[in-house]
Parts: sequence; C-alpha cells; structure tokens
Amino acid sequence: MNQINYLFKPKSVAIIGASRIPGKVGNIILMNYLNEGYPGKIFLVNKNADSIMGMRSYRRVTEIKERIDSAVIAVPAEVVPAVMEDCGKAGVRSVVVVSGGFSEIGKTDLQDQIAGIAKKYGMALIGPNCLGIMDSRSRINTLFLPSYKLAKPRVGGVSFIAQSGAVGSVILDMIAGEGFGLSKFVSYGNAAGLDETDLIDYLMEDEETKVIVIYVEGIKNGRKFISMANKFKGKKPVVILKAGRTEAGSKAAHSHTASLAGNYQTNEAVFRQFGFTIANDLSDLLYFAKIFESEGEPKGNRIGIITNGGGVGVLTTDAISSSKGITLGELSKKTAEDLRKVMPVLVNIRNPLDLAGDADDKRYHDAISMMMEDPQIDMLVVIILFQTPGGDSRLASELVNMKISSDKPMVALSIGSAYTEMHKMMMEESGLPVYDSPRSVALSLEALLSFYQFRKGC
Amino acid sequence: MNQINYLFKPKSVAIIGASRIPGKVGNIILMNYLNEGYPGKIFLVNKNADSIMGMRSYRRVTEIKERIDSAVIAVPAEVVPAVMEDCGKAGVRSVVVVSGGFSEIGKTDLQDQIAGIAKKYGMALIGPNCLGIMDSRSRINTLFLPSYKLAKPRVGGVSFIAQSGAVGSVILDMIAGEGFGLSKFVSYGNAAGLDETDLIDYLMEDEETKVIVIYVEGIKNGRKFISMANKFKGKKPVVILKAGRTEAGSKAAHSHTASLAGNYQTNEAVFRQFGFTIANDLSDLLYFAKIFESEGEPKGNRIGIITNGGGVGVLTTDAISSSKGITLGELSKKTAEDLRKVMPVLVNIRNPLDLAGDADDKRYHDAISMMMEDPQIDMLVVIILFQTPGGDSRLASELVNMKISSDKPMVALSIGSAYTEMHKMMMEESGLPVYDSPRSVALSLEALLSFYQFRKGC
Repeated sequence: MNQINYLFKPKSVAIIGASRIPGKVGNIILMNYLNEGYPGKIFLVNKNADSIMGMRSYRRVTEIKERIDSAVIAVPAEVVPAVMEDCGKAGVRSVVVVSGGFSEIGKTDLQDQIAGIAKKYGMALIGPNCLGIMDSRSRINTLFLPSYKLAKPRVGGVSFIAQSGAVGSVILDMIAGEGFGLSKFVSYGNAAGLDETDLIDYLMEDEETKVIVIYVEGIKNGRKFISMANKFKGKKPVVILKAGRTEAGSKAAHSHTASLAGNYQTNEAVFRQFGFTIANDLSDLLYFAKIFESEGEPKGNRIGIITNGGGVGVLTTDAISSSKGITLGELSKKTAEDLRKVMPVLVNIRNPLDLAGDADDKRYHDAISMMMEDPQIDMLVVIILFQTPGGDSRLASELVNMKISSDKPMVALSIGSAYTEMHKMMMEESGLPVYDSPRSVALSLEALLSFYQFRKGC
Repeated sequence: MNQINYLFKPKSVAIIGASRIPGKVGNIILMNYLNEGYPGKIFLVNKNADSIMGMRSYRRVTEIKERIDSAVIAVPAEVVPAVMEDCGKAGVRSVVVVSGGFSEIGKTDLQDQIAGIAKKYGMALIGPNCLGIMDSRSRINTLFLPSYKLAKPRVGGVSFIAQSGAVGSVILDMIAGEGFGLSKFVSYGNAAGLDETDLIDYLMEDEETKVIVIYVEGIKNGRKFISMANKFKGKKPVVILKAGRTEAGSKAAHSHTASLAGNYQTNEAVFRQFGFTIANDLSDLLYFAKIFESEGEPKGNRIGIITNGGGVGVLTTDAISSSKGITLGELSKKTAEDLRKVMPVLVNIRNPLDLAGDADDKRYHDAISMMMEDPQIDMLVVIILFQTPGGDSRLASELVNMKISSDKPMVALSIGSAYTEMHKMMMEESGLPVYDSPRSVALSLEALLSFYQFRKGC
C-alpha cells in the first residue's frame, strides 16, 4: 500500500503538541478533528499533560501501544527531530510537520535531519513549514486557520496542491465561496519529504480526484516531474499556476520560498507537452478547476448560447469567437423548426438564442432540450440574468434539472450581487458550474476542449 | 440651460401611466420616487383614475397647471404619440419613454413619430424601449426592476450609459455589489431622441461625474461621435465596452438591437485615438470604472507591492511585469534603511515587500507610510489576505486611514469568501478600491497610467 494513503485515510491519528489553549496550533488541529467528526481514533501527545479537554494525553508517542497511521507534529522546530524519532520507533506510518523554523530561515541541517529520520523509518513526510492536509471525505484537517476567516468547501472532485500556505488557504476559501467541491488539499511547505511530483503521482491514481490543481513557485526535481508527467499523460486534467513567470516574479519567488523558478518558457513548454492546463491568474485557476470537476469530454467544439439578456449574449459570442479552438455552432434545420414552433414570435431563432427578459423556466426548458439534441451543438452556455422578470428560484431549479439529464457539457453564466449570488450558489452546489463573466466561460470551455483533444492524441 | 439637465435634475416630475397595482411599471416607478425620497414635486397621470394610493391623479398631463421638468411615460406604444403631444403642449421639458414596441419590433414609423414630436416641442427624449434614468444625488429613478433582485449603488462618481437594459441592470447590480459609487445611470434603448454621443457630451461637463462608462453595440452616428470625442479629448476617463467585436458577435448584435456594429478594428482605433479605455469583458469594465473613480494621476509608472502572503505577492509581481507601461519600482536606499529599522528580522526588505502572515495594522502602517514617501514608488498595491492571523477589521481600518492621507494611487487586493467580502465592502465603501485578482489589479493600474499619460499629450 502506498504510504501516502496513510496521510489522507488514516484509521488513527496522533496530534503531537496537542493543546487545550484556544488559538494554539495544537488546539486548532485537535478541534478540527473533533468538529469535523473524524471517525478514526485520536491520540493526543503533550509532554506536559496527562489530560487535555477531558481526553487522555500521552507524554510521548512511544507510550501509545496502538497502531498510528498518521501523526501531526506541532512542536517547536528544535524538538521535531526527537519527536520524529519517537514516531519512527512507535511505528507511525506518516507524519505532517506543520512547525516552521527550517530551511525557510536557513536551517537546512535541521531539515535534512528530519528528512533522514522519515527515510530511515519509511514514514511519508509532509512539511515542514506547511498547513498540511485536508481530505473532505476522511475528514482529516490539519489546517491551523481560524475557521471563521475562511469557508470550507463541500465534498467534491478537485484536489489542490500548494507549496504556499497563504495561497492555499486563499484558494480553499475561494473554492468554498464558489460552491464547488474539494477532494483533497495539501500545503506541503518546504517539501523535506514529499514534493509536488509525489503528490501529483498519488492523486493521479486516486479515484476521488477528478482534477488536480497545482500552485507552485518552483518544480523541485525537474527530471522526476517529467517522468511522472509522462507516465500519466492525459490521464486526468491538471491545472497549474506557476508563479515566477517573469524575471521580477522569479526573483520574488526565490526570496519567498527559495524556489528556483527556472525559465518560465521552458516550464510552460513542458507543461503543455504533457497536456497540463496553464492558468495565468488565480481566478483562471478557479474557473478551470470548476469546469473540469463538473464536465466530461465534449463531442466537438461547437457552442450553443441561450440567454435572457441580448447584450450579454452578444458579449459571450464575442468571447467565444475570440477564443482558440471553440466556435459558435449553427442550429440544424430541425432544431430551428422545433424552436420556432414553441418560442414566442419575438424570439429570433438563431445562435445565440435570445429568449428575452421575460423568459421563464418553461421557455428555458424548451430551448435547452432542443439545443441539447441538436447534433450541431456540442456544448451549451446558458446565460441567466436574475435581475430580469423571469429570473427566479424556479428557473434556477429547472436549469439544475436540465443539467442532470444532459450528456453534453453545460455551464451557466450569471452576473450580479446578493440575489444572483444566492441562486448561483444553489445551482453550483447542485452540480451546474456557474461563471461570472463572458471571458471566464470562454476560457474554461476552451480549456475543457483542449484537454480532451490532447487526451485523444495520447 | 442644457435640456438634458431636466432629465437628471428635475424640480418636478410627471409619471404618466402611474398605477396602484404592485409589479406594474407605472407602480414600480412611482414607488421608486417615493421610497428614495425624491424631494421635488410628483404629478401622477392616469387616464382612468383621479386618485392613486391617496395621491391626486390627473387624467391628462395638460390638466396640470404647474411647470413639469420631466415626464416618465409608461403607457402602451400606440398611445405614446398622443401622450407626448400633451407633454409638448403642457410645456414638459424632457421625457423618458420606457414603453417598448417601436423600432425594435419593426415599428420605425411610430418611433419616427415620437422623435418628431420631441423635436417639435424641444423636449429632451430618452428611449423608447429603455430602463431610463437613475441619478443617485437627485434621486431620480425610472428603472422598473424588482428592487430585491438587484442592489442599489451608493452615491459616487461613476456615470454609466448602456443601450441595453439588461446589461445596464447587471452592471448596476455589480457596481452595488462591489461597493463603489454611482453618479448617473442611463439606459437609452432605441435612442429616438438622445443617443450615446449626446449623453457622453453631457456627462463630460457634469461635475458629479468623474468617469464615464459605456456599453454599446453600435455607435449611432459616427461623425457626431468623433466630433464629440475630439472636443473632450483627455477631459475625463471614458471606459468603453463595445459588443460585436467579432463577426459572430456583430451579427448577434444586429439581431439584438438592429445595431450596425461596424468594423471593430476601425471602432477600436477611433476609441484609442481619443484616449478611451477599452474593456474587453464586463469584469474589466468594472475594474476600470473602480480605479478611475477613486484614483487620480500617478506621477510615474513604478509600482510598490506590500503583502502578507508571499505567493500572492509573487503572482502580482508577475501580473505587473507582464503588463505594458507599468513596472516594479526599486526601493530607494533611504526607504530600505528605514524599513530595516522597524521590520522584524525575517522580513526581507525588497519590492514586493512580504510582511508575513502575522503582519498587523502597525506593520502595515509602517510599510505603507515608508513606501508612500519613497520617490521611486509612484503607486502602491497593498495585498491583504484576511485568512491570515493578522487579517482583521483593525487592519482594514488602518488601510482606509492610510488611503485617506495618501496622495499617490493606492489599491488593495484581497481574495476570499464571506469574511474577506465583509472587509472588502468596508474598505471599498470608505474609498479604498479593492481588487480580487493579481490580473485585475495590473490591468487597472495600466489603464490608469495610460489615460493620464494620454491626457498629458493632449
């Protein structure tokens, strides 16, 4: 069994540095496990306590005479090597070292030491200097962040890997705010043990992961990365945001995590060669993750647009027509005739199809089902402006129903504040991806098509 | 006095087609005037009523023996000419015809007729087939939209012109959701009377308008537009989103509003020639409006970045370095020395300046004030990730204080869901523009610099 599995699916965990004091790292992690209902065994370790919040606490992990699949270590850096030795002796299978104070402040010796201990005992190691791991299904959560400051995503298919804790937490919060679902999250920090390549390798074989999303400042081991990427070429969508694309950015990245960002053009060429989807901004990363989580392979590149706002239909037409690869489909004769029979006389039968501001669930239903059946349409963009007379919860529900019964990619576009946001969340949580601008829709459909075309060629 | 002024600043208004029935256009408009506390005189006109909701109602506008600055007409299309004749005879100075059923369904004769009546009596005419006018200061609001479906922006300096009602309402809702302020809003529909050129001309001289934002599908009169643009070259920032940029989009625009989109390359060249800022997406329109509303002329193109998340600092460095015109500044020797004295030892003194995740209001205060005084820094991007330990309301307040006392452009970048959104709204409403991605910050600073450089050359 892959040792990494113990990190995500441990049957038992030890929290080393567990604390009763609210706000302390060892307390936040303990509270995470309790609050999220982690179903496995929890062992607490604190060298100064026999009991924490009414639970038994051990002075050393070696005192625990049961099997421990994973240990989270939240103790001062200088104590970590001794604690890890204990873990090795106790047969702990994997460790997450959240403590900082290693190579990021020049203490490479200390870091090499813990890497050596992990190796000696065959323990999988995440960290040090990281937020650690979250798994939405096993309810593992080592992230020591105040829970009121960031929302938690629902269970889903996106697995996210970030070197940086801050970027990681921002993206988690964004995923939750957008309403789409997370499988696994890893902030791996200094990567003394496992690095981004090992994690991608693991997630490629992980059935709970539909799309892998990565934020990196530098690839630790280029040769290993390429060998992994080659092995899994086209297996799953991988979205990558690489910081340090420019000379100034590269210098800043080096100052931040001592990453050698490398020549970005070289990096980008490698990513493309293996079919990775390249994000140029944090927002694009989110857009791409969203479409890959919810949509499968499109049969072709022809887009249909349905709208209740003419102007946004035109803007979306522009965005799609300016994209590479995707194009607007022409309605087949049959679809045009069928639509003409049921649409109000003022609705012009063409693509984009403008249903007018008074369009209700019935009109959308007819339009979507007819365009979905059209052999000349491969993917559908459904624009719903909730500011219009017809924009209500019934319409949102109908779109979700249509999405469930559809076998072609279908995404929604809705733009606005509170009232719109409420409906977006409802649709998004029911599996209909919702975008907030014509540009983001077009970029995402382009990315979807591009990946599946790449895969066909593999 | 410019007749258009009566549309925005009427001392008295008539609502023709006023209604007591909730949901009816003539009722929504009446309720708008009442609810928003319009301070002028309101006259109601309804051919079937002497009293509406306890207010006196007239059968015809000619029965009103007082001066009427503006009339809103919400009656069936075929009745509009007669009603407008009445308005002319009653000395009404301006009219907004919200009714549809004119050229957009082929009834160009009917439309020509009302255009002729407006001309005959010298009345300013907005519409038909439009949402009409909103003025956040005079509290004029003819928008017949359910108020729970879209938020209303605060008072501010952005004036927005849209041909399309749907796009207009979406953008109003977005402006409100973003928390920045509106001066005037016009949806002018079929433009039988005033068109986009007349409105831009008016807003260029309007002291309440700091930036003009336009959504158009076609320029009605190219020669007139160019003459206006030339007259006001560089006077105020104008942000323009032109739909129908592509061939497919242009066809869709023609089907939508019968606009002749024209050759986009030609349009774009004209816009650039007169220093207009071109938006390629709805989201860009918002970003640009925001920066022009809050920021003035930068002294140069050198950006300083302060962050509490290293990774987002690197991504922002990348975004700025990839932009045209703007660049990262190098800290002066004095600033570097001053910062070294007050910053924790782990803070690396450079640009971008990474204050670390535990940075509080004090550390931000020092960093901002020192970088603001640096002669080698012209504009400042302050990144605050509210997911970090230091991210709280006190920090948000401090940033607002620093913004108020600063004479260089300063924008914030914060990314996240509920907790972050709350703080973004607070900062935005206090005058600090907040962006949600590195890309949008860079694009906006680039647009700001570019406009003021253009202006210098005028």
